[in-house]
Amino acid sequence: MEQRTHLCGELREKHIGESVTLKGWVQKRRDLGGLIFIDLRDRSGLVQVVFNPEVSQDALAIAETVRNEYILHVVGTVVSRGEGTVNKNLATGAIEIQVEKLELINKAKNPPFAIENNTEVAEELRLKYRYLDLRRPVMYDTFKLRSKITKSVRDFLDGEDFLEVETPILTKSTPEGARDYLVPSRVHPGEFYALPQSPQIFKQLLMVSGFERYFQIARCFRDEDLRADRQPEFTQIDIETSFLSQEEIMEMTERMIVKMMKETKDIDVTTPLPRMSYDESMSRYGSDKPDTRFGLELIDVSSFAKESNFKVFTSAVENGGQVKCLNVKGQAGSYSRKDIDGLQEYAGRYGAKGLAWLKFEEDGIKGPIAKFFSEEELATLTTAVEGEVGDLILFVASDKSVVADSLGALRLKLGKDLGLIDQSKFNFLWVTDWPLFEYDAELGRYFAAHHPFTSPVREDIPKLDTDPGRVKAQAYDLVLNGYELGGGSVRIYERDVQEKMFKCLGFSDEEAKAQFGFLMEAFEYGTPPHGGIALGLDRIVMLLAGRTNLRDTIAFPKTASASCLLTNAPSPVAEAQLDELSLKTTVEE
Amino acid sequence: MEQRTHLCGELREKHIGESVTLKGWVQKRRDLGGLIFIDLRDRSGLVQVVFNPEVSQDALAIAETVRNEYILHVVGTVVSRGEGTVNKNLATGAIEIQVEKLELINKAKNPPFAIENNTEVAEELRLKYRYLDLRRPVMYDTFKLRSKITKSVRDFLDGEDFLEVETPILTKSTPEGARDYLVPSRVHPGEFYALPQSPQIFKQLLMVSGFERYFQIARCFRDEDLRADRQPEFTQIDIETSFLSQEEIMEMTERMIVKMMKETKDIDVTTPLPRMSYDESMSRYGSDKPDTRFGLELIDVSSFAKESNFKVFTSAVENGGQVKCLNVKGQAGSYSRKDIDGLQEYAGRYGAKGLAWLKFEEDGIKGPIAKFFSEEELATLTTAVEGEVGDLILFVASDKSVVADSLGALRLKLGKDLGLIDQSKFNFLWVTDWPLFEYDAELGRYFAAHHPFTSPVREDIPKLDTDPGRVKAQAYDLVLNGYELGGGSVRIYERDVQEKMFKCLGFSDEEAKAQFGFLMEAFEYGTPPHGGIALGLDRIVMLLAGRTNLRDTIAFPKTASASCLLTNAPSPVAEAQLDELSLKTTVEE
Repeated sequence: MEQRTHLCGELREKHIGESVTLKGWVQKRRDLGGLIFIDLRDRSGLVQVVFNPEVSQDALAIAETVRNEYILHVVGTVVSRGEGTVNKNLATGAIEIQVEKLELINKAKNPPFAIENNTEVAEELRLKYRYLDLRRPVMYDTFKLRSKITKSVRDFLDGEDFLEVETPILTKSTPEGARDYLVPSRVHPGEFYALPQSPQIFKQLLMVSGFERYFQIARCFRDEDLRADRQPEFTQIDIETSFLSQEEIMEMTERMIVKMMKETKDIDVTTPLPRMSYDESMSRYGSDKPDTRFGLELIDVSSFAKESNFKVFTSAVENGGQVKCLNVKGQAGSYSRKDIDGLQEYAGRYGAKGLAWLKFEEDGIKGPIAKFFSEEELATLTTAVEGEVGDLILFVASDKSVVADSLGALRLKLGKDLGLIDQSKFNFLWVTDWPLFEYDAELGRYFAAHHPFTSPVREDIPKLDTDPGRVKAQAYDLVLNGYELGGGSVRIYERDVQEKMFKCLGFSDEEAKAQFGFLMEAFEYGTPPHGGIALGLDRIVMLLAGRTNLRDTIAFPKTASASCLLTNAPSPVAEAQLDELSLKTTVEE
Repeated sequence: MEQRTHLCGELREKHIGESVTLKGWVQKRRDLGGLIFIDLRDRSGLVQVVFNPEVSQDALAIAETVRNEYILHVVGTVVSRGEGTVNKNLATGAIEIQVEKLELINKAKNPPFAIENNTEVAEELRLKYRYLDLRRPVMYDTFKLRSKITKSVRDFLDGEDFLEVETPILTKSTPEGARDYLVPSRVHPGEFYALPQSPQIFKQLLMVSGFERYFQIARCFRDEDLRADRQPEFTQIDIETSFLSQEEIMEMTERMIVKMMKETKDIDVTTPLPRMSYDESMSRYGSDKPDTRFGLELIDVSSFAKESNFKVFTSAVENGGQVKCLNVKGQAGSYSRKDIDGLQEYAGRYGAKGLAWLKFEEDGIKGPIAKFFSEEELATLTTAVEGEVGDLILFVASDKSVVADSLGALRLKLGKDLGLIDQSKFNFLWVTDWPLFEYDAELGRYFAAHHPFTSPVREDIPKLDTDPGRVKAQAYDLVLNGYELGGGSVRIYERDVQEKMFKCLGFSDEEAKAQFGFLMEAFEYGTPPHGGIALGLDRIVMLLAGRTNLRDTIAFPKTASASCLLTNAPSPVAEAQLDELSLKTTVEE
């Protein structure tokens, strides 16, 4: 067979008169007035090919047998479409191909769903026939974007003298963090490898090795219960450097983002990127990954609230909590009591016991709790929330974290429901000045807010012994449109500090040594100060492609129960395979 | 601390007079005549820094405390070394740094071995302290080369409109091929994922999806008993295309190799690369991956041998076997009987029952088997082997595969021992025209010579039913200096051919459907003709870096028993972890 001369989607008026050879799939066939029109599709797009008995009877005869998704080899001439028949929705819509020769490359059964960008098909069916789902041009475009993103990132890092180094997938189980996937060893019966949750330890060891500048577009694994935006395996852009400060790492990351956004989306990102401290982000947005594409910020009215007669408010403040609110501008008329009950139910999922509200109406401030406030107090409130007629104020009174979680979630919901979000914006944001630890009151212990290798701010190191809860971290998260793209930190590089860190996290000396002894030992052999960042590639692709489902960015994703509907993985294995691994399943037959 | 202004290894005479700030590791310290000289090392190389009491007493005082592998921050001025003190072995050897300011960034314990390129240290110790082993500049250079190779390959493929697509690591166990690593599922008790031996099925499915041009630098896994050149996880450059013929895929691969060799080694590779059929390669070199950097080819003397009185020879030929020999030119004098016994022992490892020999001496052809041949026969032999005085002829008589294996191995050994190999050569070679199957006489069944998805030559398809052993494959291996870099093939893309293939491999219809039903079903929905290639990255790096150990090309490799001596993986896990996976180990405590 002759080679292709062109791709379908690249043909334009300038090609008129040329003889072309195309190969592709039948998107659609129409028979009209003795002619046959076929939209032929390849990876580049569509072009219309026409079978005319006056050009080739043979080709027309074959074309009559052709159905959707058949694969054709077409030789013909590019001709202009008549004025009235130009298809403005198609890049190739000004021309068509008069076919002189047609060969059928392969047939196709009728697919279980149409190969079209806009699909209402159940995701289960799409995942079972993933190879057909991926035929939809929007999917190809997403993976093309993904490939361009990694190319751009690699070009940038290569230019900055980084080496891409592969770290092991078969490695050691670590208890801190999420649940590991385990891999039984055949050679060492009763022992297991673990799949890495990240290359963290290896990239730090490469800094001990003096590699100075490492990156990897790295597969990572977490055996977690899955949400819409989690997958058992995911990919991160993993970077580590020596001798750079937090500022320098952030600045370099910004240059990488600028290049990537320009090359993949032709968007100019202005640097330095905005920054916000963790405390400010929690206070203004009730979130450590705020969507800054719209306002509707949280307003602290605790000082007003504690003077009121409303017991829910006063006791919240007296118990060390807060009262905060959202001013939903101009929406007083749009939300009925029933609507607000719905919002209350929503806030409840995030721990709020209730959702108090007030409306600024023509004749004053109304609502079930209005009666608890004096005229003077209501005036104070009006100033605090910049209240105007038409505004709806929604309050949550509770402890700090419930207030943040529930109002933060409500803010996002209202932002979406009310169309406050400019979907064309890409709002990057650094969140900085993180606490080193989070305290889990239930378990009565500290957890690492990022991971156990994050360095405290140098001047806070003594507080590790005295007041760990107040130690700040040299950590920074990069946020885009309300999603955490990833985070980084300057790392601990001194054995004694690392030992203190493990102690704060409740490790005994023996446990710390058994798990991370080799790393702490490595620190003693001349370890440079180092730090880095890891960005979630799947999420970056999702946001840049304008998708909402992480599975659309992964060629062969797993379902929420971690199954592959295409291959049926996981699946039972032969008993002999388990015998070789010295394993028995405890599942009853 | 100030930022670096330069890297150590990049300083030259043109920098003389400049003030520089360096950060790096102490390679060596020498105290001489009141001065201290330190070789400072960073990722770029070494530079000599000098501490002079007349320049800075403070810096000198700190320098006095400094030991190997300490990390220093140095500010100073680049000065010329005196005529007599230039170090020609060092790129920076014409200059040195007069240090004005010194800060100690970190201390180091005395390392368990010296950080030097040439090391006699046991590999076990190097692997336990891999982070120190990687500090040796030769190791950094190897990983820099590795990173450059993948960059070059990615640039090439991107330019050819390939998308890099990631395929799953958690996937389905397949019985054909090597042993799988298994990953127990927690969500589906009693079921397992497998780590992929290659992305083969997924890349073919991407062709069904119309992606047309896929690549991935992909991690692959095999739970095999390890040899020096095997690792449990390895990386391959994995490529698949639609609509291209074998010729076109090979031509594209050649262009990729040309670019890679030019960009990473500045070597011009001439194309088209040499080609040899599988049969010719086996016949001339006793190997399907011949090292063509030297001659010493196998010479078939069966027709001569069968006329002789030497029973070993005649019966080998009568039983369908062969007699072949090597003519070791001019080495008759160098190999004593004892030496030849050694060679015989070596050939014996490859199945040869004996190693007959003759020497061309001044006064005739000598050796224990000379007596079995007439003058006339010896004259025939002389012509066949182009025998001259001083030549040593080594014979193996056996079945075809033993002759090939043993003489092929002996040829390589002699090539090395006698220094016949030009180490500066990079001899690429395509081996083509493979058989589709290999027959295992012991198990009485066919195995796929490559894998079960390799397409037969189209005209041989009918022979699948009648004479599978004579079916040729559309397969091609790329060989470099006697190593198989990898192989490719045009794939089966029709369900009925794939079904026949599985039948030849001894699958029942049910087994084929259970394992590969989804792939065969996919073939029915409009699958283009497709094919590709997979090249072993680790081996490419090893050969281009001039290394002999695959472990030197992998940052954190496993030992021959698949252990990581650094992290102690694999290791026992908590019983609770196994409980979650519904597993029990059968190992006695």
